[in-house]
Amino acid sequence: MKKIGIVGGIGWPSTIEYYRHICELSLAYHANINITGPAPMPEILIESLNLNFAVTNRGTSEPGSWDVWDTYFNNALGRLSKGGAELILIAAVTPHARLNEISKGIDVPILSVYEAVGSQCKKQNIKNLLVLGTKPTMTSAAFKDGMHNYGVRAFYPQTEELKTEVLEIIERLYQNKTEGASEAIAKLVFSCVPEEGLILNKTAVCLGCTELSVAFHDLKGESSFVLEGISYLNASVAHAELAFEACVTQ
Amino acid sequence: MKKIGIVGGIGWPSTIEYYRHICELSLAYHANINITGPAPMPEILIESLNLNFAVTNRGTSEPGSWDVWDTYFNNALGRLSKGGAELILIAAVTPHARLNEISKGIDVPILSVYEAVGSQCKKQNIKNLLVLGTKPTMTSAAFKDGMHNYGVRAFYPQTEELKTEVLEIIERLYQNKTEGASEAIAKLVFSCVPEEGLILNKTAVCLGCTELSVAFHDLKGESSFVLEGISYLNASVAHAELAFEACVTQ
Repeated sequence: MKKIGIVGGIGWPSTIEYYRHICELSLAYHANINITGPAPMPEILIESLNLNFAVTNRGTSEPGSWDVWDTYFNNALGRLSKGGAELILIAAVTPHARLNEISKGIDVPILSVYEAVGSQCKKQNIKNLLVLGTKPTMTSAAFKDGMHNYGVRAFYPQTEELKTEVLEIIERLYQNKTEGASEAIAKLVFSCVPEEGLILNKTAVCLGCTELSVAFHDLKGESSFVLEGISYLNASVAHAELAFEACVTQ
Repeated sequence: MKKIGIVGGIGWPSTIEYYRHICELSLAYHANINITGPAPMPEILIESLNLNFAVTNRGTSEPGSWDVWDTYFNNALGRLSKGGAELILIAAVTPHARLNEISKGIDVPILSVYEAVGSQCKKQNIKNLLVLGTKPTMTSAAFKDGMHNYGVRAFYPQTEELKTEVLEIIERLYQNKTEGASEAIAKLVFSCVPEEGLILNKTAVCLGCTELSVAFHDLKGESSFVLEGISYLNASVAHAELAFEACVTQ
């Protein structure tokens, strides 16, 4: 198995989920293989960064304002490469917005969350994708551009009110208040997309930050599932699955 | 904050607990400090190893039989050092048995689980310590030797039957079967130590592997607690606390 590198800490609960998913995928992969000793695991190198430093050094639209931020992530990627990582993930959607800038000079393949979600959409013939996530995710063009390469039209909740609702749901889930959360997400989805449009337009909903998946209890480990007529894609699970596939492919 | 290095994957659920503890300690530490942005986190570098490789390359009493195993851990420690770690933990009790061998040539301080448990014993004036853990832990002299430096007499369940009981409890907890587990541990403790001896001889019980702490639900995040007359020390929580203290100490 190839050694997996993970840029983590953005934030740390998401890093735990990625690490757990990969280890559980390895358990399942080796379950029916006759092996001496405990299930083999890929070696995994995690560079967990300081979220405070990353957030307080976010840039603006000014040229050069992202330099410190870019360097912080680029250095972490460089250390993963030097530490023997043969493929790399960034365990968070938000930093993907600057993937081109932060991956400069890194010669190890970085598997992006867009690739993970995009190839899931292709497999399931999904043409439209409502992306729910953090504020930076729902206000930048990055996710839309990332999906464009896979022939998928990504869009965000259309109004400020709807975006605020998403952020409030995330905030409650962050505090582990899960009661009624999946119903609140479903209600919000129907405010963004007319119910009949979901099927007609081959539309799915992307859970684009780790907290959102907590709403779905037993389904939170699935990369895709259907609940009450809505097709969901879980970005971080799909991302971890893509990494594990690459890790066991020669 | 100093950068923390962790040798993980032995096994992976334990690595998650160490990482989570350290992040939660940083949250608590910064809770009442006026800071812009989310709570600062130490940078954490995790080398998660392949448990199968480690287990299948365990040595015997033959000279040289541990060479492959020792090199595997020594290389991981070396990569943590090169990756900028300023202090290192091994997130498992078992590999500590060969700490001298695997730390050769590593110039970054390695904070051992013995140091963590030993200094907790000193703080609480504990003189005797019943250590419950995996088979290698309960059959090697390493934990006893480690505690000796702190003036603590460590001992294991005295008979094969009692040791087997511990391993059966761990096995059930590994499958997340927690019902009745803390009672089973208490019963076992009283089979190893007469009830009155616990207080008279200043005896505590060391939860010497991560699974055991799962039995104690809400208390599993505490480095020490008293339940039904038994003083418990949680080795991995104490270890994570020691690391975080060192991380914020200049």
